[in-house]
Order: sequence, then C-alpha cells, then structure tokens
Amino acid sequence: MSKISLVIHGGARKDSEFIREYRDDYKAALTEVSQLTYAILKKGKHALDAVEAAVVYMEDHILFNAGRGSAINSVGETEMEAAIMEGKELRSGAVTLLKKVKNPVSLARHILEDSKHILLGAEGALEYAKYKKVQLEYDSYFITPHQYDVFMEERDSKTEKEKENILNHGTVGAVAFDSKGNIAAATSTGGLAFNRKGRVGDACMIGIGCYANNKTCGVCSTGDGEINIRNTSAAYISMLLEHTSLSIQEACNYLIHSRNKDTTSDMGLIAIDKSGNIGISYNTELMHRAWISSERGLQVKIYEP
Amino acid sequence: MSKISLVIHGGARKDSEFIREYRDDYKAALTEVSQLTYAILKKGKHALDAVEAAVVYMEDHILFNAGRGSAINSVGETEMEAAIMEGKELRSGAVTLLKKVKNPVSLARHILEDSKHILLGAEGALEYAKYKKVQLEYDSYFITPHQYDVFMEERDSKTEKEKENILNHGTVGAVAFDSKGNIAAATSTGGLAFNRKGRVGDACMIGIGCYANNKTCGVCSTGDGEINIRNTSAAYISMLLEHTSLSIQEACNYLIHSRNKDTTSDMGLIAIDKSGNIGISYNTELMHRAWISSERGLQVKIYEP
Repeated sequence: MSKISLVIHGGARKDSEFIREYRDDYKAALTEVSQLTYAILKKGKHALDAVEAAVVYMEDHILFNAGRGSAINSVGETEMEAAIMEGKELRSGAVTLLKKVKNPVSLARHILEDSKHILLGAEGALEYAKYKKVQLEYDSYFITPHQYDVFMEERDSKTEKEKENILNHGTVGAVAFDSKGNIAAATSTGGLAFNRKGRVGDACMIGIGCYANNKTCGVCSTGDGEINIRNTSAAYISMLLEHTSLSIQEACNYLIHSRNKDTTSDMGLIAIDKSGNIGISYNTELMHRAWISSERGLQVKIYEP
Repeated sequence: MSKISLVIHGGARKDSEFIREYRDDYKAALTEVSQLTYAILKKGKHALDAVEAAVVYMEDHILFNAGRGSAINSVGETEMEAAIMEGKELRSGAVTLLKKVKNPVSLARHILEDSKHILLGAEGALEYAKYKKVQLEYDSYFITPHQYDVFMEERDSKTEKEKENILNHGTVGAVAFDSKGNIAAATSTGGLAFNRKGRVGDACMIGIGCYANNKTCGVCSTGDGEINIRNTSAAYISMLLEHTSLSIQEACNYLIHSRNKDTTSDMGLIAIDKSGNIGISYNTELMHRAWISSERGLQVKIYEP
C-alpha cells in the first residue's frame, strides 16, 4: 500500500472547566472522526474527500466551534467561515460571513470544483448555497446550549472593554495525504465569541488558515486569527519547505517558537509534507489533535505530551 | 535628508481602446498622485499617511477601478475592498464587500488604528463605517458612465458563459518608505466586472494583495486576484527577502516570471525593500505605474519600457 496520512485538530487554546469536563467526549470525537476519515483514504479516495468529511464531522459535532456549536458574535449571531484547497492544481474554495449553511466546508468545496472565484461571502455566499442546493438550517440550529450560556454569562457580567478582549476562539482543520500523493487541507470555524459583526478571520483565507501544494505541504493554522494573518501562517510553512532545508516539524516549530517566540497570541499548526510526514506545533495549554498514517497507528491528544 | 521612496500602480492588464484614448489623463493622474504623496513623505510624515493619501486620490478618480469608478458585478452592484498595513508592528486593517463608503482605504485605516480585528466585511463593515463617521455616498456615486457602458454592452451582447470568463479587473496600490525607515502598503479595488455577488478578492487580504514589514519590504499585488491568492503573492515577496539573497527587483521577477512562468493569468507587483529600493514587475501588456525616490526623480509609465 502507498503511504497515506492524516492529521486533524479541533482548536488550540487555554484550558477551561468545560474542556476538562468533556475531555473524554473530545477524545471520543477525535477518535471517531480520525477513523472515518482514514477509512476514506484507505479506500484510495482523494485527499479532498477525506478532509471535507473530517471537517463536516466536526461542523456537525456540538463540541467544536464550527457549524453547529459556533461561537456567538457581539450582536448574538453566528457568522461562519471555511476553506478547502487541493495541492495538485492549487484549486481552492472558501466562504465567509456565512449563515444558515449546515456545512460551510461543503459549500467551499462547491466553489473549489465549479467557480472561477475562490472566496464568497455574506449574502452572495448564501445565494450561491441556494444555487448549489446545499443543506440549510435555521439560525437557531447553530447555537448550542453551551455557547449560548457562555454568551449570556459574559454579556451580563463583563464590561464592553472586557468583551473586546475576549479571545475565545476555535477552529477545526484537517490535512490529508492520499495514496496518489495528493495533499488537501480544510478548515472551518464559527469565529470569535463577541467578535464584531462582519469580522472575517483567517480560517477562510487561502494561504493563511489553509494551504495545500503537492510540491511542498498542506497546512491548517489555528489560534488567534489575526496573528495568523500577520504571518500568512499556512503559506509561510510551505515557503519554508520550498526555500530552506527545514523538515515539516521543524518548519512548524520555527514559525511558532522562533519567528513568534515573543507573541502573547495563541498559535497552532497541523501539516503534512509531500512525503506524507506529519508536523504539529502550538504554543497554547492544549490543542485537540489526532494523527494517523500507514506507518503509525492513531494518536489522539489534548494536552502535552 | 534620509532616503524616502514611493511606488504607485493603477492596475496591470491588457491594453484597450479606452486606455489608449485616456492615456494622457492616466499619465496626468499618476503624476499628480505621485507628487502629492511624495510631498507628504518629504514633510517627514509616516508612510501610512502617504499610502492612504495615494489610494484615496485614486479611489476618488474615475479612471481607476476603486471607490468612484468601481467595476459593476453580475447583479449591477459595486462591492469594494481595500487593505492597509504598516511594517513596524504589522498593524493591519482591511474591508471587503463594502458599499457606500467613499474611501474604503480610510475605513481600513480606522480598523488598523483602533480594532482588534483586521478584516471587516459586508453589513458589519458598513456599521463600523457609521460608528467611525466616515463619509458615505449614494450607491450611484460609485458608478461612472464608462463602467456603466461597459456593463450594459457586455450584459446585452455576451452569453452567460462569456460573462463568466470576463476578467476585467483592476486594483490600485501604493507602497511608501518614509524618512524614519517605516514601510507601509495600501490597496483598493472595485473588483471584477460581472463577478458573482459576494466575491472577495485579493485586495483585502493582508499577505496576499498587501503586505508591509520593516524587516523585509512592502508589497502590493495586482492582476487576477485568484492567482495572487494561490501564490500568497505579497507575503511571498517578503519571505523571499527573509530567506534568500534575492534583491527586491529579483524577488518580484522571480514570483511572476519564474514561479508563474506558465500562467495565463495577469500578475503585477510593486514593492519597496527595507533600504528604500523599489521593485516593479508584471506579465501584462501594460501596468499603470509611477515611482520616485530621494535618489531619482519621478518616473511615470503605462507601457514598456
């Protein structure tokens, strides 16, 4: 069998009571999504099919901040975004400021397959969703009891200034390397709690939240979107592989722990290089993550090591 | 006097009857905007003030596809975007899917100065504009007779498929190096004629359409947005300066004429490195451009050489 590999994350962030309480559920979800996604790769399917399926699973799962379970912005709404890219022809699709679409990553996949554009947002993205007949849900579908409780508690207990400084973020992402050597990456997020309406983050930006190139690597970044934008994080890892002799793990470590060693912002990266080798790096208390390849069985981790 | 330098562009594209007819007006506008922007730098003001003023001028000028004179999308509307970044602290601001705001780049500047976010879009961006009390105009202000004529002629003479393939793009951009060694870059665009409502392009994406870093360079990219997204063009130039020994001109040439030598897409770049040296490169029939520094007087060009 040709080498295949897969790495998935459900966000890099500070620890919390909620995460500790649902630790086993997070592990179970990461295990299940890895197994079902890896089975797709084992059947010889394209890396794009694998990463889309992985992200759909996490969008549907209430524990992750994407699709159902999205964060609630400062006016009590959810605005979602997602991106997907494949590394052979660099085809890409992405959506932002999206409402009502059950699986933002699947709408991004439609753009990748059929549109001359890469990123569609807001009302125009929803029109495209209707044109493509993807599944829609009511706005209330996306808001889970946990996100609602967090929103209401913080709304009523914090000053406007304190709310401005809440960086309660979360992204999901998946990178896959298929049996034909194709790399694909996909990301999705419900954004930041209390973010200003209209805020576009890194998860929908090709080259920042998500990048794939069969000549170098596939990457998903997570953490504070704005620091990933300033670093062009995902493409930066690819550039390091293109122009230096760093390995994929060294490249991920370099971006986070050397180039950004003084940052107070949260950063996390998952990546797979053109030979199927996996890299993972983060500077937060925890990162929900799982990885598996034809060389090594499934690993599921939340905390260090 | 410390070295200062400035480079401005008004888009890289195919030649057209319209451009030939208004050749002298384009040259006069490029001359005037360069002179007024250079005067700002000569007064010792910050590079950010210079690039914002340059882009405001081009947004207000009907010959450029930004602000007034924006392209009209497939449903007869204009949706604008802009970005601005400074290279010392990497502060950035950007807007997309924006209507009614007379100067999108100035709204982006407000985000750079005051917001924890980087990119705001659609309705939320307009709310922020009202909160910041920036000048608004009626939708009809942005549509010029020329853009309207082009829109109506193509709407009535072309098939849907032909309209899909129109890539009638245009961006404006400016990069400045001030007397204190600060670099800033800014971009603005009215998007693509006949683009799908909701299409977000490269001009609002930090690291793609616009990037500035005092340790490397400032860059604006133009041409087909989607190829710049796939290349993470602006940050790619910065990364070449960070990790290779290429000069700024060599880096711009490398990205367009080597890394993308087989592309049929339009690409253009303007850039200034950390020593104030200017780089310009493009693969199109023409690029509206002007540059000036304390070492060499004003150059204004449309065609080669």
